[in-house]
Amino acid sequence: MNPLTSPLLTDLYQLTMLQAYFAHGMLDTAAFELFVRKLPGTRNFLMAAGLEQALEFLEQLHFEEAELAWLEQSGLFRGDFLDRLRKLRFTGDVHAMPEGTLFFPNEPIVRVVASMPEAQLVESRLLNLVHFQTAVASKAARSVLVAPGKLLVDFGLRRAHGAEAGLLAARASYIAGFSGTATVLAAPLFGIPIFGTMAHSFVQAHDDEVAAFERFASACPANTVFLIDTYDTETAARKVVALAPRLQEAGIATRGVRLDSGDLGALSRSVRRILDEGGLQRATIFASGNLDEYRLRDLLASGSPIDGFGVGTSLVTSADAPFLDAVYKLQEYAGVPRRKRSAGKATWPGRKQVHRHFRDDGTLDHDVVTLESEERPGSRLLAPVMLGGKRVASVPGIHSLRADAALCLAALPSSLRGLEQPAVPYRVEISPELRELAAQVDKKTGKP
Amino acid sequence: MNPLTSPLLTDLYQLTMLQAYFAHGMLDTAAFELFVRKLPGTRNFLMAAGLEQALEFLEQLHFEEAELAWLEQSGLFRGDFLDRLRKLRFTGDVHAMPEGTLFFPNEPIVRVVASMPEAQLVESRLLNLVHFQTAVASKAARSVLVAPGKLLVDFGLRRAHGAEAGLLAARASYIAGFSGTATVLAAPLFGIPIFGTMAHSFVQAHDDEVAAFERFASACPANTVFLIDTYDTETAARKVVALAPRLQEAGIATRGVRLDSGDLGALSRSVRRILDEGGLQRATIFASGNLDEYRLRDLLASGSPIDGFGVGTSLVTSADAPFLDAVYKLQEYAGVPRRKRSAGKATWPGRKQVHRHFRDDGTLDHDVVTLESEERPGSRLLAPVMLGGKRVASVPGIHSLRADAALCLAALPSSLRGLEQPAVPYRVEISPELRELAAQVDKKTGKP
Repeated sequence: MNPLTSPLLTDLYQLTMLQAYFAHGMLDTAAFELFVRKLPGTRNFLMAAGLEQALEFLEQLHFEEAELAWLEQSGLFRGDFLDRLRKLRFTGDVHAMPEGTLFFPNEPIVRVVASMPEAQLVESRLLNLVHFQTAVASKAARSVLVAPGKLLVDFGLRRAHGAEAGLLAARASYIAGFSGTATVLAAPLFGIPIFGTMAHSFVQAHDDEVAAFERFASACPANTVFLIDTYDTETAARKVVALAPRLQEAGIATRGVRLDSGDLGALSRSVRRILDEGGLQRATIFASGNLDEYRLRDLLASGSPIDGFGVGTSLVTSADAPFLDAVYKLQEYAGVPRRKRSAGKATWPGRKQVHRHFRDDGTLDHDVVTLESEERPGSRLLAPVMLGGKRVASVPGIHSLRADAALCLAALPSSLRGLEQPAVPYRVEISPELRELAAQVDKKTGKP
Repeated sequence: MNPLTSPLLTDLYQLTMLQAYFAHGMLDTAAFELFVRKLPGTRNFLMAAGLEQALEFLEQLHFEEAELAWLEQSGLFRGDFLDRLRKLRFTGDVHAMPEGTLFFPNEPIVRVVASMPEAQLVESRLLNLVHFQTAVASKAARSVLVAPGKLLVDFGLRRAHGAEAGLLAARASYIAGFSGTATVLAAPLFGIPIFGTMAHSFVQAHDDEVAAFERFASACPANTVFLIDTYDTETAARKVVALAPRLQEAGIATRGVRLDSGDLGALSRSVRRILDEGGLQRATIFASGNLDEYRLRDLLASGSPIDGFGVGTSLVTSADAPFLDAVYKLQEYAGVPRRKRSAGKATWPGRKQVHRHFRDDGTLDHDVVTLESEERPGSRLLAPVMLGGKRVASVPGIHSLRADAALCLAALPSSLRGLEQPAVPYRVEISPELRELAAQVDKKTGKP
């Protein structure tokens, strides 16, 4: 059983539901939509991500014999149901916003239209994939906005929530505009640029810091960014200056230094001075250590001469909003619009579309959530990506996704670009037709 | 390349370090220790977890030809280095606290002693595995402490950070004392009990709520926990009461109901009354929906008659402490103790042991962090689990780990059992011998 692709990567109730659907012949077409109910207080917008992995999951969906055998011996399911599972594939349609698209509460970002069992079974893993990458892309975009032109590198693997989280965080943050990641496997898997410097343990393993720098430079001459905070940052910066001419003679350029602790603002200034006075004006300063977009903003606002940042834990765990209120809800079954009215969790019924309106300067003005069938002005954000279980277009490369995401970010109005909540949130209207449909559905299922 | 076991699941700088270690023949024995520098404000203790997966990773560590080929064509590494990687296996020793052990800041929970390249390469994935499961076990233990005797089920897969996070969160929370998980794949992979009820979409797919309940009961007669909040909770509870005799005639018992929204305290009381008055005194009430240990505590303190809880997002993301300050640091190389002195990140040098002292009533009194070599009273918490790359003992089963974890939790002093910070934190002493060693190391590497 493959822990990343198994159809058992689902909640038990999905399988019990499926048994009931099959038992009662409820195989009509269902439309589910994936959306976020509300923004965390620490996000002014969200960036869609994770569609590629969601589509891969749908394309390969099938039960292996070992999985069916396990289900059988669990005693929880009937033999005839397991025969249905053996034949089950995803044969439905998917509409979605492209990865990198900015979106807001109550706007569907993925719509799945399929036979009820197919559409129901995939809920848990679809949400799992899209929710996480969306959370990370949305977090990463904030660093990209506050540190334009800086080298931003994902350093988060070690504190990501497992290996898949580390890999997908590298992917989502790259799409959102990061320069790359330290996670090696993200390069062969996703084609993301990788970056790295040196570790404290390497310095510590030497009795002498200069010896450590020198050995590192001779073993990795193209990668001479020296980590200078193991003992005393300024002292080590002077050692780098003293070492540089010797390296130069050996044909090795001193590319830069990395700070990883202490007062990064003050240290970056004193280290810059030491490097400049020592003739290393072209050596860059890279900073890391408990960084997030707030620290980046404050460091840059105070004029810290830092050229690049390693952002780790806070990015890959989306630490100030470690989850979004993302859900996947039934909006239509057997041609009839459906609506959940649970307290605080009501949904808009039917298959929907999002129409985006721009200002003359190209920035976002407002969105209207409509029925899919409505003819209306504004760019339609959801497009078909899978029909009858097959993709409708070739997969966009990750660099192209990143370029498109940059265009999306460029269209953000200034009110949403900061780290604090805007005075007026972005306007998302619900079309009169959609409101009318909700009222009709309520009338039919009783009580308003 | 397997995204869960590949040695490329590492930071680029680990590989560049390795190239330098090999180039300069720095293959002496290194001792690294994994520990947490400080507690989040929302944790009074931590529970170690994830060792099993860490040892599996070490046991199978090797580079596949496809990985070596990718490294070669990346142009970042030398041919002779890649030959060394081809032969690399983990052949070192590991000492660790058993999973389920409670621990505190600066206490090593895993020690890796191996040739420098082996010990360095594994840092990223080892931390990734142990950090996450420890974070979740520590979070889960808080729910276990405030809701003794209640059914606690992990509902978090959909908002976990990827599939591995969902699976490992199910495992870590089960070890910490949860009753099981909704994630099906956790059952065949780890032997964890699985639980599930029904979904809103199933109710919504029917025009009539009672018809939905009836069909669900007939398809899954052993699993009749009805979800009653899709439209109106109390109305639906009355429908369940009215339906129960009919199900009874068909030989189907009504096991219970699930609440998933609204004021769970008030609703649980009114629903309990409706069920009791309707003759369903034995039907249980299960609650879910944005729950965490604070809500559990408050609901139970107010006397809510809830028998079980589904805890999802907050658990699997450890939402109020989505990361721990967990690190893996070089403490000794080539027989010489090492220490990092970076501002705010200094470490205690040498191979260490944790001695735990208990009170007469069996509860924890205090710990002493010592050098491994010190003979001292108190239980030694770190024991050998791998020698020369091979496990020293058979793998304890998950139910046995869970039973041991329960004993650990039972030994928690009352001051640490609540959700708020204790007036006095748990006492962790540093032995005089260890302090003396740190002073010696400082003297040798210059400046105090």
